[in-house]
Amino acid sequence: MTNCALCKDELKPEEGQLIWKGDDCRIILVNDPDLPGFCRVIWNQHVAEMTDLTYGEREHLMTLVFAVEEAIRQVMHPDKMNIAALGNMVPHIHWHLIPRYKDDAFYPGSAWSIRVQETPAAILSERRKKSADLEKAIKAEIASLI
Amino acid sequence: MTNCALCKDELKPEEGQLIWKGDDCRIILVNDPDLPGFCRVIWNQHVAEMTDLTYGEREHLMTLVFAVEEAIRQVMHPDKMNIAALGNMVPHIHWHLIPRYKDDAFYPGSAWSIRVQETPAAILSERRKKSADLEKAIKAEIASLI
Repeated sequence: MTNCALCKDELKPEEGQLIWKGDDCRIILVNDPDLPGFCRVIWNQHVAEMTDLTYGEREHLMTLVFAVEEAIRQVMHPDKMNIAALGNMVPHIHWHLIPRYKDDAFYPGSAWSIRVQETPAAILSERRKKSADLEKAIKAEIASLI
Repeated sequence: MTNCALCKDELKPEEGQLIWKGDDCRIILVNDPDLPGFCRVIWNQHVAEMTDLTYGEREHLMTLVFAVEEAIRQVMHPDKMNIAALGNMVPHIHWHLIPRYKDDAFYPGSAWSIRVQETPAAILSERRKKSADLEKAIKAEIASLI
């Protein structure tokens, strides 16, 4: 769709970094100042809902989603993982995978809830450094699926 | 876990209605005044993350999640489906399945975002009536999986 941001497949450097791309999906490390390690798994074709996919496509996508969750847990050691496919603003299937910490800006609310606290800068900086290891960990998880 | 609300498996009538229970999961129709048709798929055992489950358990759970999405779409005709597993407050796997409409209280934000509008009462009432058909539709979807 010409007016869909996720169909354009253009990623501005300030939005994040493409870390893996396959025939059906791609994986982005999101540049979120409050939530280091936030990744997105995007279905390449313009499809709105998971139940618009075939069973095989759903299974393939969810296997990748959980591979990314596994890698995020290994690298980022979050207090909780959050997984969500919303798409109210961009109705093109994309899964948010967000490592959450008790001291993050929105905890225990969702990543879309109101801000309730500030994470100490040194801790945020440490987590941002850690998130640089995600690309390698995600690629290793995906390689282990084959 | 003795202090986990979802381990207790008690549902107060004001919270919602149990519409299906299997050996591994149960499905609740949530009594949300703003979001009629909101369902929850809950893993019966106390497990925090999807990647704590085996591959087979994950697949089983996601098959049920998508069966519920299918039924919600058939009955509620939402503008968009939202699916999320957060668990920051209750770290016991549960999936939220939420039919979203352009006129709902939080659209286009998440169901956990700030309220931005009021849905006309007559429309909300019509959607609440429709949601009474979900139990039958979900059971039919699950029966078709076997």
